[in-house]
Amino acid sequence: MSWMAHLEHAEDAVQGVLGTGKVADYIPALACAPPDAFAMAVAPLDADVVSIGAADVPFSIQSISKVFTLTLALEQIGAKLFSRVGREPSGSRFNSIVQLENEEGIPRNPFINAGAIATTDVIVSNCGAEGAPAHILDCVKRAAGIDGPYIDKEVAASEQTFGDRNRALAYFMKTYQVLSNPVDLVLDAYFHQCAIAMTTRDLARAGRYLAAGGTDPVTGERMTTPGRAKRINALMLTCGHYDMSGDFAFRVGLPGKSGVGGGILAIVPGVASIAVWSPALNEAGNSLAGTLALEQFATSTGLSIF
Amino acid sequence: MSWMAHLEHAEDAVQGVLGTGKVADYIPALACAPPDAFAMAVAPLDADVVSIGAADVPFSIQSISKVFTLTLALEQIGAKLFSRVGREPSGSRFNSIVQLENEEGIPRNPFINAGAIATTDVIVSNCGAEGAPAHILDCVKRAAGIDGPYIDKEVAASEQTFGDRNRALAYFMKTYQVLSNPVDLVLDAYFHQCAIAMTTRDLARAGRYLAAGGTDPVTGERMTTPGRAKRINALMLTCGHYDMSGDFAFRVGLPGKSGVGGGILAIVPGVASIAVWSPALNEAGNSLAGTLALEQFATSTGLSIF
Amino acid sequence: MSWMAHLEHAEDAVQGVLGTGKVADYIPALACAPPDAFAMAVAPLDADVVSIGAADVPFSIQSISKVFTLTLALEQIGAKLFSRVGREPSGSRFNSIVQLENEEGIPRNPFINAGAIATTDVIVSNCGAEGAPAHILDCVKRAAGIDGPYIDKEVAASEQTFGDRNRALAYFMKTYQVLSNPVDLVLDAYFHQCAIAMTTRDLARAGRYLAAGGTDPVTGERMTTPGRAKRINALMLTCGHYDMSGDFAFRVGLPGKSGVGGGILAIVPGVASIAVWSPALNEAGNSLAGTLALEQFATSTGLSIF
Amino acid sequence: MSWMAHLEHAEDAVQGVLGTGKVADYIPALACAPPDAFAMAVAPLDADVVSIGAADVPFSIQSISKVFTLTLALEQIGAKLFSRVGREPSGSRFNSIVQLENEEGIPRNPFINAGAIATTDVIVSNCGAEGAPAHILDCVKRAAGIDGPYIDKEVAASEQTFGDRNRALAYFMKTYQVLSNPVDLVLDAYFHQCAIAMTTRDLARAGRYLAAGGTDPVTGERMTTPGRAKRINALMLTCGHYDMSGDFAFRVGLPGKSGVGGGILAIVPGVASIAVWSPALNEAGNSLAGTLALEQFATSTGLSIF
Repeated sequence: MSWMAHLEHAEDAVQGVLGTGKVADYIPALACAPPDAFAMAVAPLDADVVSIGAADVPFSIQSISKVFTLTLALEQIGAKLFSRVGREPSGSRFNSIVQLENEEGIPRNPFINAGAIATTDVIVSNCGAEGAPAHILDCVKRAAGIDGPYIDKEVAASEQTFGDRNRALAYFMKTYQVLSNPVDLVLDAYFHQCAIAMTTRDLARAGRYLAAGGTDPVTGERMTTPGRAKRINALMLTCGHYDMSGDFAFRVGLPGKSGVGGGILAIVPGVASIAVWSPALNEAGNSLAGTLALEQFATSTGLSIF
Repeated sequence: MSWMAHLEHAEDAVQGVLGTGKVADYIPALACAPPDAFAMAVAPLDADVVSIGAADVPFSIQSISKVFTLTLALEQIGAKLFSRVGREPSGSRFNSIVQLENEEGIPRNPFINAGAIATTDVIVSNCGAEGAPAHILDCVKRAAGIDGPYIDKEVAASEQTFGDRNRALAYFMKTYQVLSNPVDLVLDAYFHQCAIAMTTRDLARAGRYLAAGGTDPVTGERMTTPGRAKRINALMLTCGHYDMSGDFAFRVGLPGKSGVGGGILAIVPGVASIAVWSPALNEAGNSLAGTLALEQFATSTGLSIF
Repeated sequence: MSWMAHLEHAEDAVQGVLGTGKVADYIPALACAPPDAFAMAVAPLDADVVSIGAADVPFSIQSISKVFTLTLALEQIGAKLFSRVGREPSGSRFNSIVQLENEEGIPRNPFINAGAIATTDVIVSNCGAEGAPAHILDCVKRAAGIDGPYIDKEVAASEQTFGDRNRALAYFMKTYQVLSNPVDLVLDAYFHQCAIAMTTRDLARAGRYLAAGGTDPVTGERMTTPGRAKRINALMLTCGHYDMSGDFAFRVGLPGKSGVGGGILAIVPGVASIAVWSPALNEAGNSLAGTLALEQFATSTGLSIF
Repeated sequence: MSWMAHLEHAEDAVQGVLGTGKVADYIPALACAPPDAFAMAVAPLDADVVSIGAADVPFSIQSISKVFTLTLALEQIGAKLFSRVGREPSGSRFNSIVQLENEEGIPRNPFINAGAIATTDVIVSNCGAEGAPAHILDCVKRAAGIDGPYIDKEVAASEQTFGDRNRALAYFMKTYQVLSNPVDLVLDAYFHQCAIAMTTRDLARAGRYLAAGGTDPVTGERMTTPGRAKRINALMLTCGHYDMSGDFAFRVGLPGKSGVGGGILAIVPGVASIAVWSPALNEAGNSLAGTLALEQFATSTGLSIF
């Protein structure tokens, strides 16, 4: 069966649930996303990108950007990163502060908000506060091999306006010296990174290096080492969906990272990178139709790391 | 490089740490295990078992038995199991009761103590309290294709004597109707299951069905369906090493399940099952040398699911 | 204004809420208590007991018995008690197990369930498992100066039947060696103590020693030392109403101890002991009308320790 | 025995421990306080202030200021305050954020940091951000009947510099709309209030209204109503010493409020207000010698609310 046939099966499977769930509304700029939009794209290592649905409509990738920020931080300081960010599933919601108090300000992993802020702090140390957002965006563009991705200024401003919870996390870590830079500079870079927008098609392309040992086989762009690519995939599998990471591993069986904009990036090591987008979310903040589409795709293709 | 060569590399890699860490001493019957013992075995899908070290010495597999109990419970009641046991990493120690209070008595996953007790309760409902231990042992023997595994009565008795923490977990779940049977009957079965002893070689053989879609390719013994085998592997990856599951996924990159007897079972889907044994444990209760041996093995073979 | 006039004011004040709230139903033997029953009694140091309402109807004093058990344990081993039971408010519900896990099995205070079980363990060590319930009952009778109080066998049996949560607490403490005796023996004594029944009038009498420096001024019965009486009062004030202890101190301003049978014992040091009974409970498990009656009584008499 | 004799007994009792414990060092401005300084003063309702030791040396009252801020906020908005601040002991450290996450941003009581910040927010709403510190200082001066108390600018600046933990608490509450004003304005007022300095003698005088139903009997200054004075005392008893409030009630038996500057204010309702100062702190952050002095004082005078 062709990739397109599998995508069609996936699209069929979600028809009944499109629009069920709840679009993220913690910032106004996200609340207006169309709840029943759907797109899915596959970027095989050895063939052109195949897509279905609204795959050329840009959307806010939100927390999916944390995959690229992590890649960048590992390139910059290597395993030293893990002296200030853990690599264990949190067992808590994405914005929980409880765990920080119990563990001396060290966030459990780079994919919960606190961990991504601490990772962004590394980028700020290396690129400066002003340069950090452009550097992260450039990383995404290099990964995608295209100039399409951009920072949605309205979303970034909205994140700033409604960012008090993240400020609490950041100041809390600051008291434990987990952040090296001033909180407002780190958060400014963090909010801009969350506001990166791109199409489903480009997102699939951008994740391809993770399926290919760190270097995109089509563009030849080297993003990271084979060992780090594996480790990022491992973190995506254990921590990529907040307190539903276990459920995603159980149902889909692929490393993945979700964002509250409704996107999910999933990796089939050695085979392909997959992106899906549908804005209505389940109770854990992951795309409801997107998760189901990936589950169906994994079943029909038989692709699973297990 | 041959399997044996990889095993030799792994054995070399652990020489410096053999005996560092701490042998489990919560029950006297375990405390006398030799801290620097070491054994490792590979059961490829397409070749004979290869082993190194003390691979024919039986040891107490302890929590590794939970993999077989889970397999059995899924065969008995299918996905209904997940109405009383979750499938998320716990973020807490193996015997934590905090999570139960916050989540209405439902244990996070089948591999923490509470979850394994709830899973054993299913076996007791289906096989009777007297029959349950024999049934679980028989499952292990069928998986291994050999009559070697046995229940170490001294260990089982010791677990009973020092089992108050597990009693607390069980009574707590009982108040939420998560257990259907009397606590002492369920725990009796649970303690017997933890007391299963077998050799490293047999353990590698016994895990082979998980690498092969549920049916052992050598013996032809069908243990479970392909879909369930994948899901058990997913649970091993996200939850198999308690609050160091993320670290194991990061360093080794394979589904695995550890026991405080010093054993670890790891699965390379489609390729092989691997068992390792070394009694001295790290701070999270997983074999220190065993983890390192698997990390080295994954590196030298390039086998990783990521 | 006379004591009777104050009682009448209190009774008036609760007319509108009698029967609102919820009668304890965790054991069948308590669920049949009349929700709108009401009784109140004052035992002044210098005058006869005055009462209003159904003050001669026996009811299950439940956790109020913990005051007498604490008195007895302090007489038996003095301040050594506080090496295994704390004296801080818990900030959690009466039957929470979370706090125990975070604090090595030491319950926060003698009035939450875990703390009362640990206190009962002391009595069992000193009087034997068989003798303990009789000893505690005898203590209550001596305090009341009358033979009225008795152990309601049906309630005790019901507590046994539905006692799994307390079993969980007890086994959990047992793993930390906080209990010296076998769990089932300690719990048997604990359940019997909770099943003590007596009238509102007798309960007021029984608390008088706490208002009088440890010795009942009417009967001359010496229950404890002046210093211990003060300290028991302090514990009643900070911990006597579970996670609404602060609210009770704020509204009523007197040391008090509630029970899920709907009773509350309150102490006015140097002046009087007060008992109130009304079975319908508020969300924290304290008598709703009883709390309001005491608040009104404290206001109209001007009696408050603050 | 005269007040002076009791003070001498208390001073004697602490000789052995003066300087043991640890001076607060979270801000440099506090770290230089002399660890073995000692002062104690009694302000009886019916006699002149009596003091011993360095009672005319000003010190940083820190959290003791929360008593006056609470008084002011209750005068400004009455019981409405308790819609955003609870009145239960927290069971946690003074700067814990865990409780806020579990209870929707509502701090447990007005004496933990988060609760005092929320209380200060009320003052800011009523007096403006610029006016708030002066207003609180004025309240302290009126209570003391003297112009002595002042804001130590160096301490206030130091609190600002090392205030990230409080910023985390404030931003966290802000996300739940518990604060009405901008975080930096509220914290500026909060830090200034914590930096109030005054002598032990003046502090005893300043607390006298709480022992006298809300109006100072010497100066005639009305600070609050009798009912509110009682309730503030109740809160001091249940919550005035963070997670050692129960211990203080048990040992001293008086409402009290401590500060990390080494001061404690204690109230004997109807009799006197007492202040003590000694900078070295116990592990919960309360003056070690000060607590012991009050315990001795309560014993020798027989004054206790229990």
